[in-house]
Amino acid sequence: MRVALLGGTGAFGTALAVRLVQAGYEVVVGSRDLERAAAAAAEVGAAGATNVDSVRDADLVVLATKAEAALDTARELRTAIGSTPLLSVASELRFTPAGVFPSGSAASLAERVQSELEAPVVAGLHSLAASTLGADEPPEEDAFVCGDDAEAKALALELAGHLVTGRALDAGPLASARALEGLTAVIVNLNKRYRGHAGIRVTGLP
Amino acid sequence: MRVALLGGTGAFGTALAVRLVQAGYEVVVGSRDLERAAAAAAEVGAAGATNVDSVRDADLVVLATKAEAALDTARELRTAIGSTPLLSVASELRFTPAGVFPSGSAASLAERVQSELEAPVVAGLHSLAASTLGADEPPEEDAFVCGDDAEAKALALELAGHLVTGRALDAGPLASARALEGLTAVIVNLNKRYRGHAGIRVTGLP
Repeated sequence: MRVALLGGTGAFGTALAVRLVQAGYEVVVGSRDLERAAAAAAEVGAAGATNVDSVRDADLVVLATKAEAALDTARELRTAIGSTPLLSVASELRFTPAGVFPSGSAASLAERVQSELEAPVVAGLHSLAASTLGADEPPEEDAFVCGDDAEAKALALELAGHLVTGRALDAGPLASARALEGLTAVIVNLNKRYRGHAGIRVTGLP
Repeated sequence: MRVALLGGTGAFGTALAVRLVQAGYEVVVGSRDLERAAAAAAEVGAAGATNVDSVRDADLVVLATKAEAALDTARELRTAIGSTPLLSVASELRFTPAGVFPSGSAASLAERVQSELEAPVVAGLHSLAASTLGADEPPEEDAFVCGDDAEAKALALELAGHLVTGRALDAGPLASARALEGLTAVIVNLNKRYRGHAGIRVTGLP
């Protein structure tokens, strides 16, 4: 399966690329800048391409840009992405002296990305951190995916299952992204307060 | 320590009352209806009172009404509550054929409750369910509390620590309630999808 990784030159994207290549995915790291994409891709054993080229022939597009760039990137690539399923992983955070705030928007970033695209959008991986994802061993955590399109969600759940030793869990409709994106803020607050690398495990499921 | 439990006649409130009485808290179950409060309180070994009377002399008020009643209850009790810290535990959920949606409001219910009160508001316990909280043994989960007032948060964290075998975790500022309230929707979706009783454990903290 071919995965286009938009924003694959960042810390989270790079860690994700490493895990996906290890899992046997054909990964194309996308960037606005071809040289930057090629350099980042070479480090992880993937191919590099411009954003537009990276999404051609992809089975799944992972939108792993910074949150600020997510909507513009989706808008610019609307035609190139077409109907290829897209997994949105970014969370809007606001850093304040009192702590990290979740987004102040009622709609999640993923729902706003969906409004820019024809493709089915799913969201997930928000509770995974670059630091633990990029470690030698996969993190002992679960991963969440949500979405309204069953086939797109199945692709994303399969991908997520390769990233953790725990389970890839279907967290319901795309609207659940409001909670999952906010969970990133909770995790950053926990990391600051307890000086750790927080992840999530779900108990009580058969 | 004296805890006023507003909405303590519901399933979650009753389960919470049982645990708090077991933990040695002096619990006053509040309801609009004195007879209902007295009946519910008698079942769990607590005292019963009208809402207004229950919050007098309380060290902590737990707002455990249904989400739809939370704002009105806070507004009506503004004077009676005064500056007594309040813990908001409800989550707005919207049940749809596609699954359970988190709130469509940008601000959390707890932040809106805060805007009705002089008292410091903290939020928490959103990942705990009446079914597991009311079981014979405390759930093997962690519990989250967030808030902007350090003293109020400390009271709520102490209370939360008596409810689970895991940890009571400080999830940051009151704005984190946007995520924690949404987490209830994720948990209900997980329970529907996997037919379980999902709870949360945080990994990676020292």
